[in-house]
Amino acid sequence: MTGIREIRQPESGYYYTFGPFAEPIERVAPGERVEVYTADAFGNTLVSEDQKASDVLGPYLNPQTGPLYIEGAEPGDTLVVRIIAIEATRDWAVSCTVPYFGGLTSTNFTATLQPPLEERTWLYKRTASGGFAWKDRWEIPWAPFFGTMGVSPHIESISSLAPGAHGGNMDVPDITEGHTVYFPVHHPGALFYVGDAHAAQGQGELCGVALELAAKGTLEFGLIKGQSIEWPRIESETHIMSVGSARPMEDAARIANVDLIKWMVRDYGFDPLDAYQLLSAAGELYVGNMVDTNYSLVARCAKKFLGS
Amino acid sequence: MTGIREIRQPESGYYYTFGPFAEPIERVAPGERVEVYTADAFGNTLVSEDQKASDVLGPYLNPQTGPLYIEGAEPGDTLVVRIIAIEATRDWAVSCTVPYFGGLTSTNFTATLQPPLEERTWLYKRTASGGFAWKDRWEIPWAPFFGTMGVSPHIESISSLAPGAHGGNMDVPDITEGHTVYFPVHHPGALFYVGDAHAAQGQGELCGVALELAAKGTLEFGLIKGQSIEWPRIESETHIMSVGSARPMEDAARIANVDLIKWMVRDYGFDPLDAYQLLSAAGELYVGNMVDTNYSLVARCAKKFLGS
Amino acid sequence: MTGIREIRQPESGYYYTFGPFAEPIERVAPGERVEVYTADAFGNTLVSEDQKASDVLGPYLNPQTGPLYIEGAEPGDTLVVRIIAIEATRDWAVSCTVPYFGGLTSTNFTATLQPPLEERTWLYKRTASGGFAWKDRWEIPWAPFFGTMGVSPHIESISSLAPGAHGGNMDVPDITEGHTVYFPVHHPGALFYVGDAHAAQGQGELCGVALELAAKGTLEFGLIKGQSIEWPRIESETHIMSVGSARPMEDAARIANVDLIKWMVRDYGFDPLDAYQLLSAAGELYVGNMVDTNYSLVARCAKKFLGS
Amino acid sequence: MTGIREIRQPESGYYYTFGPFAEPIERVAPGERVEVYTADAFGNTLVSEDQKASDVLGPYLNPQTGPLYIEGAEPGDTLVVRIIAIEATRDWAVSCTVPYFGGLTSTNFTATLQPPLEERTWLYKRTASGGFAWKDRWEIPWAPFFGTMGVSPHIESISSLAPGAHGGNMDVPDITEGHTVYFPVHHPGALFYVGDAHAAQGQGELCGVALELAAKGTLEFGLIKGQSIEWPRIESETHIMSVGSARPMEDAARIANVDLIKWMVRDYGFDPLDAYQLLSAAGELYVGNMVDTNYSLVARCAKKFLGS
Repeated sequence: MTGIREIRQPESGYYYTFGPFAEPIERVAPGERVEVYTADAFGNTLVSEDQKASDVLGPYLNPQTGPLYIEGAEPGDTLVVRIIAIEATRDWAVSCTVPYFGGLTSTNFTATLQPPLEERTWLYKRTASGGFAWKDRWEIPWAPFFGTMGVSPHIESISSLAPGAHGGNMDVPDITEGHTVYFPVHHPGALFYVGDAHAAQGQGELCGVALELAAKGTLEFGLIKGQSIEWPRIESETHIMSVGSARPMEDAARIANVDLIKWMVRDYGFDPLDAYQLLSAAGELYVGNMVDTNYSLVARCAKKFLGS
Repeated sequence: MTGIREIRQPESGYYYTFGPFAEPIERVAPGERVEVYTADAFGNTLVSEDQKASDVLGPYLNPQTGPLYIEGAEPGDTLVVRIIAIEATRDWAVSCTVPYFGGLTSTNFTATLQPPLEERTWLYKRTASGGFAWKDRWEIPWAPFFGTMGVSPHIESISSLAPGAHGGNMDVPDITEGHTVYFPVHHPGALFYVGDAHAAQGQGELCGVALELAAKGTLEFGLIKGQSIEWPRIESETHIMSVGSARPMEDAARIANVDLIKWMVRDYGFDPLDAYQLLSAAGELYVGNMVDTNYSLVARCAKKFLGS
Repeated sequence: MTGIREIRQPESGYYYTFGPFAEPIERVAPGERVEVYTADAFGNTLVSEDQKASDVLGPYLNPQTGPLYIEGAEPGDTLVVRIIAIEATRDWAVSCTVPYFGGLTSTNFTATLQPPLEERTWLYKRTASGGFAWKDRWEIPWAPFFGTMGVSPHIESISSLAPGAHGGNMDVPDITEGHTVYFPVHHPGALFYVGDAHAAQGQGELCGVALELAAKGTLEFGLIKGQSIEWPRIESETHIMSVGSARPMEDAARIANVDLIKWMVRDYGFDPLDAYQLLSAAGELYVGNMVDTNYSLVARCAKKFLGS
Repeated sequence: MTGIREIRQPESGYYYTFGPFAEPIERVAPGERVEVYTADAFGNTLVSEDQKASDVLGPYLNPQTGPLYIEGAEPGDTLVVRIIAIEATRDWAVSCTVPYFGGLTSTNFTATLQPPLEERTWLYKRTASGGFAWKDRWEIPWAPFFGTMGVSPHIESISSLAPGAHGGNMDVPDITEGHTVYFPVHHPGALFYVGDAHAAQGQGELCGVALELAAKGTLEFGLIKGQSIEWPRIESETHIMSVGSARPMEDAARIANVDLIKWMVRDYGFDPLDAYQLLSAAGELYVGNMVDTNYSLVARCAKKFLGS
């Protein structure tokens, strides 16, 4: 027994939006570690390759655990989320195609007159080495992260399928064990939500569905009082990163890089154009998702370039 | 002395388009190694931090060495380019901002009424360790590649600033030592061009200008007879990769991933939807450039997932 | 006196989101005409050319009158809004530039490192002919419409600055006198909002601000029971129209045209490819706004082509 | 007999690129009227509804008549093209779907894994009233224009399927009888091409194919010496218009509007921000094509607003 408080969503149900209208399910103090249990993006209903997603899906997707009220968080602060650990709470993961959803199909937004792609489900089994294997065809190494994490937006209540300045469904593999994530606080208590764990995911989350997992995240919260940010940021031992979410994809890239430059200016003393130059020489820029209602790109800078 | 044939652009001048209208400067047989010398993207005219790009730029940018006529190449073949080595032919590199060009400024296409960013030049010096340092501020490790490489398009003659299905100005760091690059052949001899060496570049080439370098590339050409491809492909010891170039950026991502799936289907026996699934689980997707007339994205798949 | 019920927003205040969480301010029966008063997009605070938008703006923009509960509206129905008349409730209108907002500037999404455009305010005065004149420079004919109109989305609460499938801030000049607008109903009562009257607006609403007006709209509601639509539709004496709102702009164009084809198929008996053909030959497609969080495009088809 | 010189493409064949490498077929003096004959976009090969486009298409599409060498045109000038008349040279027009081409299908750029739409051909017959009818289903009024018109780009040779700063395949209905079109001159003689007449076309050219027509255009050329423009412009009795061609579509809209503002500043004495304001109040903005390799949008301003 760990002595760590366990947080499970009450029977009243999961949330499918990030917003200010739901009652907090728990209050957590900065510095306290908690273990948060999350359902998979299908609410744990897709369990067999004999099922199609459209057989089991209800009206809403991507159930979130929360909101957690973080004690002391006030508008204008920055919420700090340290991801201590992510553990699978089952020995399988699932992926599938969903009609008119994904990176290589027309969608409700990139609308065409073509029929949808075939629906198919892939069930992955955990292996002795901790990876997840599909039949005897391939095994994906364990690389868990939360696809969805964030706080309540200012006045909106936004679908848990959408990423944005509040975080949300970013599907960014760097939201993982050992990394720290920062969010802007717009409401007292920040109103934190988390869900959509992935055992692993390719950059871009190409078909729109990763290795979907029920999981437990060990999290520790902190606050940077009186200092605000505009977009989610991530820090690892080696990198600082900003996440931009928008359409078209180049706008997500612009947002992420402008925000990373602002970070380099404020916290590392850079002149803005010098920061622009350094990222031109050594920045990293990958696609988190190319499938959600906004695309999420991650701009990264290795700390070794940032000086002392 | 290596005994390898050296290829320098004749005094008649560099080319600024990829097209079928220029006379080949040399004929090269498959299997022969050649050393190709390239000028930097500014024609080696930007040499000091006291200069601005707009002071020295002529009407054209990004001079190309070529075209090389590859013996035996016929329309419908695939040209194979093995990059044996890339060496700097000078001990400095240069970067700069250019008015209305770059990832974090309005441009001639993303046109606004705002004034341009300040022009500034950064001159990097080679260090004892082989990296390139800007003043005492930061040092970028040596990670050379050719920003521009490709063949003549079908009937068009395309600016060397533009990437596309013919290759061109992709600005993709994986076009580097030890990797093999594939291009579709549209003309007898393929008509190969190369230029725009970079000592290093961040993903996205954020300000539009990398660590621009004059360089020598040791290349060996090959042919896959009677087999065509649609977009440039890259192979390393560990990965297969496709490069998509288009706007908006999501179209570049779509092209790269569809092409990679076609590769997995033809050469690795995949069912298309299974390939789509595997890339959803384990694909990689980074931004080569977010600054050129088309954006270039690289979709990658590790060979370890592709089976035997 | 008209005997028509007047609806003014109560003193408790305007709403800045379209969502299901606000109490209806009035209940209206299908067939009843009501006169709805709306504030301008700045809450009537920008009143002089000596003011800049950033001097007077509060945290929220674009106040909405509503929600109105339409008796009998149920999820799955279509709400019908007949715009009988739009009248100005004052003799001036105002436009301005807003920092990092508009079609020809970088924005929070199309983020660059450039400074914003100059802030400036243009105050228009009503003329004897009913148009609105700026100084003695130009006079814009009276062409009033509501920039913002719609219903509560399904589970989200969306900023009144955003257009989408629920309607919202479409900024589409065809939402005008004599036209009928259709919205999908997601909640009992539909929860209708309206605001952001414009005395006139160019297609695209280029600087992001039209001739902003306080106004009174005479509206009559109806219901199409048991028939749902996916995106807002408009009907005039001569045309049927669908409004798509998305980014990039081509997705808005795709949505609008696919929806218009669905309308032609369901209500006018077209084969889908024949409808596609007819729109290729005679469809109309203009930009409503190129400035909001989603762009709105209007696809139109003249009824004379639709047969009997 | 008119006495006007007739220009037909020689038997050596049509051109499929806009570029500087072809020999001019005729030299024309400013002020001379000529009658230019053009083939339809399929080279007049698609003649029956029993044919599919893929049955008859050769490797290239959209044959151009030209280049015409305009006497006296020099780089830096503006070419003026007055369209005196457009006449059909046959009594039918044709449209069709083409696999992976069009506005409501995935394409080679917006690449998906879906199968293409069904191929179908629509043959229109000229009616007594001069319109074009498809069976007894609908009749499209005669509204002829040239889908493709322009000059040689600077150093590139660009496919006749692509629109850009040089003009090309804009598919903009305002390139019609009675209107004047302006192009930037990059080469001595300008090197003018024209083709792709349409009997009519919807805004957006939704399926990618209008009412394709073989035609005769009566044209008169002029020059504005020593004054350059950046993008094609159009003038009618009532409007000035700029055409922007780019992807994503919002970039085409930005280009067109920035260019129109530059026109208002240079020739009508506007302050740039006032021009921005006027277009916000009264500008027009429609989609010419949403199907070509670049999208073309037309920004228009009525002359009545431009002062004296």
